[in-house]
Amino acid sequence: MIAVYPGSFDPVTLGHLDIIERAAKIADKLYVGVLINVSKAARFTAETRLAHLRELTAHLPNVEVAFFDGMLVEFVKKVGADVIIRGFRFEISEYEMQMVTANIIFGAETFFIPAKPEFSYISSSLVKEIAARGGDISGMVPEIIGRAFSDGIGS
Amino acid sequence: MIAVYPGSFDPVTLGHLDIIERAAKIADKLYVGVLINVSKAARFTAETRLAHLRELTAHLPNVEVAFFDGMLVEFVKKVGADVIIRGFRFEISEYEMQMVTANIIFGAETFFIPAKPEFSYISSSLVKEIAARGGDISGMVPEIIGRAFSDGIGS
Amino acid sequence: MIAVYPGSFDPVTLGHLDIIERAAKIADKLYVGVLINVSKAARFTAETRLAHLRELTAHLPNVEVAFFDGMLVEFVKKVGADVIIRGFRFEISEYEMQMVTANIIFGAETFFIPAKPEFSYISSSLVKEIAARGGDISGMVPEIIGRAFSDGIGS
Amino acid sequence: MIAVYPGSFDPVTLGHLDIIERAAKIADKLYVGVLINVSKAARFTAETRLAHLRELTAHLPNVEVAFFDGMLVEFVKKVGADVIIRGFRFEISEYEMQMVTANIIFGAETFFIPAKPEFSYISSSLVKEIAARGGDISGMVPEIIGRAFSDGIGS
Amino acid sequence: MIAVYPGSFDPVTLGHLDIIERAAKIADKLYVGVLINVSKAARFTAETRLAHLRELTAHLPNVEVAFFDGMLVEFVKKVGADVIIRGFRFEISEYEMQMVTANIIFGAETFFIPAKPEFSYISSSLVKEIAARGGDISGMVPEIIGRAFSDGIGS
Amino acid sequence: MIAVYPGSFDPVTLGHLDIIERAAKIADKLYVGVLINVSKAARFTAETRLAHLRELTAHLPNVEVAFFDGMLVEFVKKVGADVIIRGFRFEISEYEMQMVTANIIFGAETFFIPAKPEFSYISSSLVKEIAARGGDISGMVPEIIGRAFSDGIGS
Repeated sequence: MIAVYPGSFDPVTLGHLDIIERAAKIADKLYVGVLINVSKAARFTAETRLAHLRELTAHLPNVEVAFFDGMLVEFVKKVGADVIIRGFRFEISEYEMQMVTANIIFGAETFFIPAKPEFSYISSSLVKEIAARGGDISGMVPEIIGRAFSDGIGS
Repeated sequence: MIAVYPGSFDPVTLGHLDIIERAAKIADKLYVGVLINVSKAARFTAETRLAHLRELTAHLPNVEVAFFDGMLVEFVKKVGADVIIRGFRFEISEYEMQMVTANIIFGAETFFIPAKPEFSYISSSLVKEIAARGGDISGMVPEIIGRAFSDGIGS
Repeated sequence: MIAVYPGSFDPVTLGHLDIIERAAKIADKLYVGVLINVSKAARFTAETRLAHLRELTAHLPNVEVAFFDGMLVEFVKKVGADVIIRGFRFEISEYEMQMVTANIIFGAETFFIPAKPEFSYISSSLVKEIAARGGDISGMVPEIIGRAFSDGIGS
Repeated sequence: MIAVYPGSFDPVTLGHLDIIERAAKIADKLYVGVLINVSKAARFTAETRLAHLRELTAHLPNVEVAFFDGMLVEFVKKVGADVIIRGFRFEISEYEMQMVTANIIFGAETFFIPAKPEFSYISSSLVKEIAARGGDISGMVPEIIGRAFSDGIGS
Repeated sequence: MIAVYPGSFDPVTLGHLDIIERAAKIADKLYVGVLINVSKAARFTAETRLAHLRELTAHLPNVEVAFFDGMLVEFVKKVGADVIIRGFRFEISEYEMQMVTANIIFGAETFFIPAKPEFSYISSSLVKEIAARGGDISGMVPEIIGRAFSDGIGS
Repeated sequence: MIAVYPGSFDPVTLGHLDIIERAAKIADKLYVGVLINVSKAARFTAETRLAHLRELTAHLPNVEVAFFDGMLVEFVKKVGADVIIRGFRFEISEYEMQMVTANIIFGAETFFIPAKPEFSYISSSLVKEIAARGGDISGMVPEIIGRAFSDGIGS
């Protein structure tokens, strides 16, 4: 199985990292796709987000991190993947289901992997909101991300 | 990826078959697990259900059909699988999420594969209900299942 | 529009009556279908439930109450209806969506009518549970149903 | 039954058209209401969207297409309708339920019609997103809409 | 129990007031927190919203109205509260669940109080939308809010 | 605040215990109500379940454990409580919402407390199912419950 795990990763959370590690155990090869064109609210540049992911997945030999520009099916085809990996917490939105179904028609399968309970409450936007208010995000993100926030990178 | 797709398959529907075919394309090996102890309302014996699945997956060389007795994690370990495959339609129930999470703790991952829209309304219980009332189930099940109902097998 | 509004009506609630009155304003003819074979937990016989509905809809000239045996599509065809009416409160279950979709394929449309907020918490099973514990159901059911419970009819 | 089916129809999808055809079979008269003031992201002008709908419903003698400015209850009253028709896919949002309930209080009923499974994954926004990325939308929209996208109308 | 009930209250609805009155019966002290920085779409200034709430809760001796700037956990700590009160209608969004869980970790509990059915369809945004279109909001908001809209305050 | 936390507690889980401890911090007095008449599938007798809860809450001076027979509103009145406490995981079922709303009408408020993520996947029925299959439940229940299962009490 060659898989793609796409996302904004703005920033990478412990939840993202858990999905990457669990998927990497099962996939022969896992491409982590970093979305280039995030909305203006992006906290970190695409380059920084890619660098974060490369550092955080350095111990996983079958994981490769790459940019993608939002055309997921194209990215899937380019890397020769069989399947798209999506994490989910409590629910899958109707809009996500529509995109996933459209992707089936365009020839790309999606597998949904449930978040572990201890990560189910973490999302990138929650992390940014808490960090913006000076809250403690150390239990939500990897150490290097916590430092990036403290250092004010990208802000 | 070695995968397990467990179910009662009482009866196999076109939706089940679609999940099997899509998963078999991605998995190196797919074990279809036929639950032995279904509730009393079972329409077909476990032997018949296994025979149906074997016939219907004969064209898929990497698919193997086997019994399992409800202890899913044990079945996963016995066949050396990496992952459990579950189809889903609109929603994943809270109870299913609990079992899936318990399985993560017991060392077994679950991947959820969305049903194709044209199969999203089909379930084994709906098929049985319609057949019991003399309705037409030909668009919901493979031909051999339709014949099994017509022949009154197991009823 | 000729419509069918099916149910167990064990017992009729103010919520049922509200759906009947609202649907009867829009339909040319509304058939209220009383399910004969309710599970053993039925509090009132089918005959009593039909009598209740006849009395409660006597002021609605275009409403007719009749038995049906659970084969909804047959009932719809027999009375020449265009559409099935279903009330709903907060959500529509996956199983109901499956049946509704199967009915589309069998040629019967379903329209969902939202319950008014003040009736959204009322269901027949809640009424029975509260009545069984001696609670006050007067705000949940028509007067004649309240009397039927007090009189111990069917219990 | 005189019904109103409101929407932005930016663009009309096969799902919209299916709801129109199914509702037109049951209604004596069906008014399709084209929302004038769509958000800036509108792909086609209100005039183009109305023209599309008129062409696509030309074979339905009891369907009339008209503009409305977002005040749905006013539009319902103006055309003398009994009921508002809404399609739905998997779920009805809390906000939609609030508007529907407010409309009941303002004197307008809403009937929800479930999308057929094969159209359940289609939405106007998905169509626009796929078209913007050069994807194939031919299975999602009527032919004239596909041509309008190819011709670059309104873009 | 010392409780905080936070919100934008733009405007206060009968639903908000009902939650305040029910919570005030149970809490020893209830702080109603008026969010200062609402999005630009705010209809009333923070000062007006606070004045409205003070007038509407004048009969509740254990209720105090105060500003807060969005840092809910800080506000909870400042007033020495045990718990955050949240009303809910049909569902609790995944994002709200994430924030609530983060707040548990930051030391603040949240209790969810269900809206009464007759208020379940009311939200501040619905009120504003109906008022903007000249609709009747008298059944949705306290009298002084209705007058504030009629007087064009803040618009 | 005097609160009631009702349940079957067959068996008590770490999730139940967490709700009890969190509620006991906020309530002046917390009554844990042990449902006497559980369905036949009950694993432990009511007396055993009460004994378990008494032992597990011995360190909480403001917690009292008592039987109740399913008439929750009566139990609430008998102990002079202000409010019913309910834990929830991902969702609150429509049936639960109906009962809660009926209880409001009967004069009893309900506060919903979200489960902590790490307990969100645990339920009594899951525990029983896993234990019945010889699985490890040590991360799901207090130690004394684990021992009760090992000792075969009540089975």
